[in-house]
Amino acid sequence: MILTDNLLTSFIKTRSDTEEICAPLEIEDYVIQPIVDVSPPKWHLGHTTWFFEEFILSKYVANYKRFHPEYAYVFNSYYESVGKRVVRTDRGNLSRPTVSEVYEYRDYVTSHLQAFLEENSNEKIQDIVEIGIHHEKQHQELLITDIKYILGNNPLLPKYNETFTENPTSDQVSQYINIEEGIYEIGYKGHDFCYDNELGVHKVFLQEYNICNTLISNKEYLEFVEDNGYKNSLLWHAEAWDWINSYGIKVPLYWHNIEGRYHQYTLRGLKDLDLNAPVTHISYYEAFAFSQWKGERLPTEFEWEVAQQYFQWGLRWEWTESAYSPYPGYKKAIGALGEYNGKFMVNQKVLRGGSVATPQNHTRPTYRNFFHPYLRWQFTGLRLVKDT
Amino acid sequence: MILTDNLLTSFIKTRSDTEEICAPLEIEDYVIQPIVDVSPPKWHLGHTTWFFEEFILSKYVANYKRFHPEYAYVFNSYYESVGKRVVRTDRGNLSRPTVSEVYEYRDYVTSHLQAFLEENSNEKIQDIVEIGIHHEKQHQELLITDIKYILGNNPLLPKYNETFTENPTSDQVSQYINIEEGIYEIGYKGHDFCYDNELGVHKVFLQEYNICNTLISNKEYLEFVEDNGYKNSLLWHAEAWDWINSYGIKVPLYWHNIEGRYHQYTLRGLKDLDLNAPVTHISYYEAFAFSQWKGERLPTEFEWEVAQQYFQWGLRWEWTESAYSPYPGYKKAIGALGEYNGKFMVNQKVLRGGSVATPQNHTRPTYRNFFHPYLRWQFTGLRLVKDT
Amino acid sequence: MILTDNLLTSFIKTRSDTEEICAPLEIEDYVIQPIVDVSPPKWHLGHTTWFFEEFILSKYVANYKRFHPEYAYVFNSYYESVGKRVVRTDRGNLSRPTVSEVYEYRDYVTSHLQAFLEENSNEKIQDIVEIGIHHEKQHQELLITDIKYILGNNPLLPKYNETFTENPTSDQVSQYINIEEGIYEIGYKGHDFCYDNELGVHKVFLQEYNICNTLISNKEYLEFVEDNGYKNSLLWHAEAWDWINSYGIKVPLYWHNIEGRYHQYTLRGLKDLDLNAPVTHISYYEAFAFSQWKGERLPTEFEWEVAQQYFQWGLRWEWTESAYSPYPGYKKAIGALGEYNGKFMVNQKVLRGGSVATPQNHTRPTYRNFFHPYLRWQFTGLRLVKDT
Amino acid sequence: MILTDNLLTSFIKTRSDTEEICAPLEIEDYVIQPIVDVSPPKWHLGHTTWFFEEFILSKYVANYKRFHPEYAYVFNSYYESVGKRVVRTDRGNLSRPTVSEVYEYRDYVTSHLQAFLEENSNEKIQDIVEIGIHHEKQHQELLITDIKYILGNNPLLPKYNETFTENPTSDQVSQYINIEEGIYEIGYKGHDFCYDNELGVHKVFLQEYNICNTLISNKEYLEFVEDNGYKNSLLWHAEAWDWINSYGIKVPLYWHNIEGRYHQYTLRGLKDLDLNAPVTHISYYEAFAFSQWKGERLPTEFEWEVAQQYFQWGLRWEWTESAYSPYPGYKKAIGALGEYNGKFMVNQKVLRGGSVATPQNHTRPTYRNFFHPYLRWQFTGLRLVKDT
Repeated sequence: MILTDNLLTSFIKTRSDTEEICAPLEIEDYVIQPIVDVSPPKWHLGHTTWFFEEFILSKYVANYKRFHPEYAYVFNSYYESVGKRVVRTDRGNLSRPTVSEVYEYRDYVTSHLQAFLEENSNEKIQDIVEIGIHHEKQHQELLITDIKYILGNNPLLPKYNETFTENPTSDQVSQYINIEEGIYEIGYKGHDFCYDNELGVHKVFLQEYNICNTLISNKEYLEFVEDNGYKNSLLWHAEAWDWINSYGIKVPLYWHNIEGRYHQYTLRGLKDLDLNAPVTHISYYEAFAFSQWKGERLPTEFEWEVAQQYFQWGLRWEWTESAYSPYPGYKKAIGALGEYNGKFMVNQKVLRGGSVATPQNHTRPTYRNFFHPYLRWQFTGLRLVKDT
Repeated sequence: MILTDNLLTSFIKTRSDTEEICAPLEIEDYVIQPIVDVSPPKWHLGHTTWFFEEFILSKYVANYKRFHPEYAYVFNSYYESVGKRVVRTDRGNLSRPTVSEVYEYRDYVTSHLQAFLEENSNEKIQDIVEIGIHHEKQHQELLITDIKYILGNNPLLPKYNETFTENPTSDQVSQYINIEEGIYEIGYKGHDFCYDNELGVHKVFLQEYNICNTLISNKEYLEFVEDNGYKNSLLWHAEAWDWINSYGIKVPLYWHNIEGRYHQYTLRGLKDLDLNAPVTHISYYEAFAFSQWKGERLPTEFEWEVAQQYFQWGLRWEWTESAYSPYPGYKKAIGALGEYNGKFMVNQKVLRGGSVATPQNHTRPTYRNFFHPYLRWQFTGLRLVKDT
Repeated sequence: MILTDNLLTSFIKTRSDTEEICAPLEIEDYVIQPIVDVSPPKWHLGHTTWFFEEFILSKYVANYKRFHPEYAYVFNSYYESVGKRVVRTDRGNLSRPTVSEVYEYRDYVTSHLQAFLEENSNEKIQDIVEIGIHHEKQHQELLITDIKYILGNNPLLPKYNETFTENPTSDQVSQYINIEEGIYEIGYKGHDFCYDNELGVHKVFLQEYNICNTLISNKEYLEFVEDNGYKNSLLWHAEAWDWINSYGIKVPLYWHNIEGRYHQYTLRGLKDLDLNAPVTHISYYEAFAFSQWKGERLPTEFEWEVAQQYFQWGLRWEWTESAYSPYPGYKKAIGALGEYNGKFMVNQKVLRGGSVATPQNHTRPTYRNFFHPYLRWQFTGLRLVKDT
Repeated sequence: MILTDNLLTSFIKTRSDTEEICAPLEIEDYVIQPIVDVSPPKWHLGHTTWFFEEFILSKYVANYKRFHPEYAYVFNSYYESVGKRVVRTDRGNLSRPTVSEVYEYRDYVTSHLQAFLEENSNEKIQDIVEIGIHHEKQHQELLITDIKYILGNNPLLPKYNETFTENPTSDQVSQYINIEEGIYEIGYKGHDFCYDNELGVHKVFLQEYNICNTLISNKEYLEFVEDNGYKNSLLWHAEAWDWINSYGIKVPLYWHNIEGRYHQYTLRGLKDLDLNAPVTHISYYEAFAFSQWKGERLPTEFEWEVAQQYFQWGLRWEWTESAYSPYPGYKKAIGALGEYNGKFMVNQKVLRGGSVATPQNHTRPTYRNFFHPYLRWQFTGLRLVKDT
């Protein structure tokens, strides 16, 4: 449990970090939703604010007056038990509340919560504030990837920020790390915050395996593209093959073939493809097909968790072979707050690690991220495993 | 032909009128496209500007430098022969160019065109400018109806403008005007501007008919609703019956039943249903079903044109029974400018009259408006005819 | 009014003709529905039978016992006021009743109706029987075109019947017939059967025009294809352009380009394209685009009706420029029987003439056929008009 | 490896069993495809035959003449590397080849293969024949469930076979079996046939658990229905909640509420709901929601495999919590035969056990069946697990 002072500091910093992410945006950028998975930035701003209003201020502050009676409806997402929600595909059809009103809403809730926390500090409330902080950090990462999608699919290809480093250089030499067969412990054992899906420390038996200490690079992935990897049905899952053919997928998202040379749209604008950088914006389907082409495979999430202390990670969310399922003994938390993790435990793949868009202190070796296997707008990548 | 001075004045006024329509908007309102038929206001601002740049400045002004090389792509609409266009459903996914950049684009083109027209005045160019002015006036009406849709489908139901009068009062007493059978002339005979689809003056033979001098009111339409008009399949076309059932249509667009009483969203905000005002925001399907319920019928566009001198019109676009087809001898104009009218002459219905959103001087007795029979976001209404 | 004896003869012959059309089929061919517009042959057999059971036997025959209580549900089509119907797209999912049961149903109803008619002959019943006969003749034509679709879209391209003549030869020389401007009478004036949509004889004023005495041939249409007619957007309606591009339409239905030479699937099997035969299986969109390419136009249905006595017709249903609308004074018949014609009077085009699949005595100069503009599975064709 | 004599006997019996399953069908029942997952019976008959023709006769029999050159195209399914396939949704649009021709095709291939096997017996060929036999047994089960769907969705609800026992009675008393934590071996260790996805014997570590020795009954499931289980969003996965609401799912497939009492369509026709029988025709989503309502959970496939020797199984395919993934060391077989299992290893759930429709000797404790979580037309059911 974070002490109250730290919690307050953390709360205020998180709120301000979110707004800093949006600082380079034009008002127009806050409003649109080009695909269903990408939410308008102003919705993220409002939704993270609504969380604190809904689960703390409106419940624990006597006579608290909501900023606006309709905002709970506008900024709710998947919390079915709290009330009717704005259908997700409609988020991009709402020009009001304006961006400026959303920022007023943020200030109102931030200052009310700050005042409340300065006077009140029971553990239950601290727990919810902490969840709210982590919830907002998740949305910070989504803000960055959603902004990238909004700008990167505009025909003018505007830049977001000249200083955002997507493709850090690395001088690591690739090699495979051998992990012995045996029983290993999985799950979060610490005393700080973690999500409920990481709890339930339990043993797993792993066979011997060899895991690469580096991510697959653009250079390696380009070889796959140029070896007609996207045209060989034997490398792909059946549904993946339908997917690449229906959507005409031939390269990772944001790659552009301009007069025979590959470029990539980055948050700094359109650039030459950086061959040394880890490949990114690929689906699980593509990660899997690449691994087949290499004659290797993706790690399971358990293999990843056990081996991660032997390699660097954090540049890309790494697709694993593991489906997102409950750990032994997993119980959903009671009530609306508990709706979140459990209800997505079907048809999604676990990603491990973290990315250049992940906020500081918002990932850890046991963190379980998850997405549908066809999604590519996150900073996703892959690492390979060889059996002995 | 308008003299050059008048043309210039008219050009400048039209450009400024368009911007005045948008004055009450927030920046966010300019960006979204809630349904495919409603374009973002900033797209209208850019598209009407692109017209002048594409068809005059870039063709007739030596060394004209386009404001931005990509704008022709972004702001083109259906002019297939000019270049690839932004797919219509994607207009609402473009946060850039910003509203402010679009206004700069407008100023740039307006001032270049003004300078050019002050020095050049051949008839061909005047013709195109005149088309451009009328094109922009059409978009002024669309701006108003699109803004109404954008605000009227927002859960906060914001007001556009307290002074916009949608529902003027009238003290006319309803009565039927008898028109004798005989040969009548149809089509535009004047010397001012008209669209090519009104040309080709020709004779039609009309049977005797009786046409009402007033539009159907909300009061009359409410009787139809309350008599279960929306539940009686015999009143509806087969495809209309599918349509109302698929979309759950039970009342005109913008009607809200709040605790048993009908309200209507107007550009002044949510109001009690004004029973004396002419009904509006109905589809052709609904207008037809209403006429069946009354045991009467809609006029053809020819009956309307012949009879219109005997009654007042201009508050609502009036659905007619006529499909939108070419007049005898109709020829599409050559080239891209000619693409517009002819290519829509299938599966649409003609509307006659004009509405509270129609710019001054932008309609006339021979004007042929047209929309798909299921559309409701225009200020549409109806007038009945009885056979003798 | 047909005398009772003739009516009985006609009834029995119609019933037997329908079955003769199906004689070459395999049982499997009776069952499937490859597209929504094509019904399974066994459905046609049952539906035409249901008509007589529903509107005569069950109403006028004391103690009549329906053949099967569920068949009214299975074989109803668009008669909304009679009961719930099998959703049209589900017709091809019904393996039962079997073909043999449907033929038993036919025999049962035919013999009951025959017995009833031999004893009863009031005019009202005769009227309904006559409608039922004509209704069944309409389905005879649909049977032929639906069978062609079922076989012609099977990869084995089976033959239907070696003796069916789709492409009769003609030695007519093409020439244009001039029709003077003036007032003409339109609509059915005789005393035999006609549909309600042909009634309401009325005057129309026609401008002078010149109409070709022959249909457009495959040879002429092939020139259009080879002149890139399907690639020139200026020739097409906007929605037609979307249609040909969405569905990859490049030639008429049933044309196959095999190693550079065009063939056509006919009811006799796959054959070389018969250049002298009138083109067929084209949509209105294609007929219109062809006319634009020729610099001519399609006739209106009134022009066709007035001119038809001067040329031969009956090989192809001829697309006209006219939308399907009610004639002056048109009233839908009361009750379920009246549902048919009026409820389709929107978004369809009138076709005039008749085709090689039309039963004898089932068309006439005033007959108004109608289909959606994108449909091609009927034996459709076109004839051109030139203005003076 | 089966000896040649046994293999031949087994081959002939399998071929004849398949045909016996179809014996009660009318020809019409062989043809239709009411939903994409259900194939027409005649397609199953042809496809299982094509397998032997494609992978043995055409490869190993000198001068073998295929029965028909187009059948490889018509009866191929997912074997992408063999040639273009009939798009799955089009299978129900093919009236030809006829059922009788398909039976001729079966006889032709069966007798050619029999003759060939009597003379040739190398191990490689025996392996493929064995795969073909198992492949055909899989389709025997699909035939039964597809026939049930075809008949059970027909408004006449015809019976398939009075003697088919879907709901055997059992006198077992429910109790939970405790399994200790520890390392267990998973995967097929025998020497008979198994699929590649069962291979790779490996260790897993299981926590202690308690598994019920009986399946959930209709009685227990009805309590869930009547306790509004389908209306409580907290019990459902997010995508499951969307699914039940989009499709209006309120009970298992084939349940009918007739005047307040539940019935179930069975292969013997419509019957009262058998409360003692194990519930069937539920999706994974429903199995999971039921388990949540009970406060218990589904077993993983490993828990099931370890515990199965302690209880009876084989009446229902039992949904497990496990996603369908490769076992450690899994390698797809090379070539077209190897396409099958691996390419479905994403977004599917493993089912264990077997059902009343599973052919004899076609399941075993290590058998891994798999389906998408929304599918219900198989004889699916569930068994619960409690943690200690």
